[in-house]
Amino acid sequence: MIKVKIVSRQQQRYVQLLTNAQLPQLEITEDPQQATVLLADPPLVAPHLAEYPHLQWLQSTYAGIDALIKPEIRQDYRLTNIRGIFGPLIAEYILGHILNHQRHFPRYKLQQQQSHWQSHPYQSMAGKTMVIIGTGTIGQHLAKVGAVFGCHIIGVNRSGITASADFQKTYAITALNTALTQADYVVSILPATTNTDDLFDQDRFSHCKNALFFNVGRGNAVDEKGLLIALEQQYLCHAFIDVFKTEPLTTDHPFWRHPKITLTPHIAAESFPEQVFTIFKANYFHFQQQQKLNYLIDFKRGY
Amino acid sequence: MIKVKIVSRQQQRYVQLLTNAQLPQLEITEDPQQATVLLADPPLVAPHLAEYPHLQWLQSTYAGIDALIKPEIRQDYRLTNIRGIFGPLIAEYILGHILNHQRHFPRYKLQQQQSHWQSHPYQSMAGKTMVIIGTGTIGQHLAKVGAVFGCHIIGVNRSGITASADFQKTYAITALNTALTQADYVVSILPATTNTDDLFDQDRFSHCKNALFFNVGRGNAVDEKGLLIALEQQYLCHAFIDVFKTEPLTTDHPFWRHPKITLTPHIAAESFPEQVFTIFKANYFHFQQQQKLNYLIDFKRGY
Repeated sequence: MIKVKIVSRQQQRYVQLLTNAQLPQLEITEDPQQATVLLADPPLVAPHLAEYPHLQWLQSTYAGIDALIKPEIRQDYRLTNIRGIFGPLIAEYILGHILNHQRHFPRYKLQQQQSHWQSHPYQSMAGKTMVIIGTGTIGQHLAKVGAVFGCHIIGVNRSGITASADFQKTYAITALNTALTQADYVVSILPATTNTDDLFDQDRFSHCKNALFFNVGRGNAVDEKGLLIALEQQYLCHAFIDVFKTEPLTTDHPFWRHPKITLTPHIAAESFPEQVFTIFKANYFHFQQQQKLNYLIDFKRGY
Repeated sequence: MIKVKIVSRQQQRYVQLLTNAQLPQLEITEDPQQATVLLADPPLVAPHLAEYPHLQWLQSTYAGIDALIKPEIRQDYRLTNIRGIFGPLIAEYILGHILNHQRHFPRYKLQQQQSHWQSHPYQSMAGKTMVIIGTGTIGQHLAKVGAVFGCHIIGVNRSGITASADFQKTYAITALNTALTQADYVVSILPATTNTDDLFDQDRFSHCKNALFFNVGRGNAVDEKGLLIALEQQYLCHAFIDVFKTEPLTTDHPFWRHPKITLTPHIAAESFPEQVFTIFKANYFHFQQQQKLNYLIDFKRGY
């Protein structure tokens, strides 16, 4: 038998899915001593990883596995994450916010409350330039959606090699500043690694020209003071921030009340258990048959 | 010389575009007696159409030409409208509002004002069904954009013939009710004709199941009392209304303060003069060379 332990805020839902699926040779266990497989939320399981002597494989329920790739935590097991399911959700978040902002929906809502009929000039997304930093499956999906809205799509990644046909140009991360000068929309989808710490600081932002900035990757990539200055200096017109250095954000944080910051509580892309479970199931059969697992993390690269 | 008169709220902008373009044989005139060509906003020019004895062609600056197809108004000239440029703007409006609603942006905005960090469950657009009534260029573009978000797209038109590959199914308008039973999102892009008067009444809406309803076509298609009942009866979950029987909406209208109605002042798609002018210019050359004009209106069909 393959003994699987679940460690998730959605514990019950996963137990139910796993029970209903009746996967061969699978037994759910509560006992860390016995578990060889973990299906787990990274931040929940990270402090307890030493308690699993027989751990062989951990399927993360998140895309972001930064809680598990810190050097002080064991790396003697196979870690897989979730990919391919977040692209649509991230694209919804980005496009929804761009349109909400650009088409003045909040303003019309206020006018409606005052029974006030007045139109305001607006610009279409068509012809605007979207710079996407991180061109994995999420970035590629966002590129596809942005292109349908008529945006010119620029990608930025480590290699500078174009990831898909929707990117009209791709820069290496070393040329990030050149990309930023062209951006109407800047979207960071970067994972948290030491290479991305404070990548967006005051100097970096100074290459932007009144752009909309999105961080839907990880909070480590943004120097928060630099962001505030960038908004003040109009390098950025507005920032939409879903991920932060510390979550939940402390109540005294200046982002909460900033008129040019739209802040959301890490909801841009959520792991829907049904979708996570589909990935787990496919990987479980690979694991059982000693085949290569999908979405295996390279602990050294950190993604 | 071909004498052109401009009648538009954007008068100055069009004069400037026309002057800069230096089109052959074209002369701008202020005198209705002399004009053979009109470039005009339909509601502005409609009451004065009898004043143009030599009118041969009217290029509308709007897609909606219902102000000009009333039986009491002359129809002894060629009328062309604007097509192909509204699809992206309408898609922005629809998608922006769906995402704003479905991803709880207004709720997060309120929470931000209270420094309150809390996430709320949401559903993706992926897998939802969008019913698009009207499958011309606007409907086809919306279908393409909806499909990229993973929606199942159903079209409804006069013939029941599928207009593009993005429509997974197309019903004839006689089977509209069947389409509505499947809808998560209902979008009316219908032009104003006598056939579309009060097409959406209480009985029609009763086939919907807690759908989001959009009217971005013309106000005549919606029976306003029927809409209010549909919201009360939860045939509709929310309505987004950009066009009305009377515009501007009177200040005492019940739509203004209705919590389940999002009301905008006819801004879903605006005629940007640069784009309109591009269409006018192409048509001007056709007119000058006595060729067939693009986007010619059939007065009988009304579109």
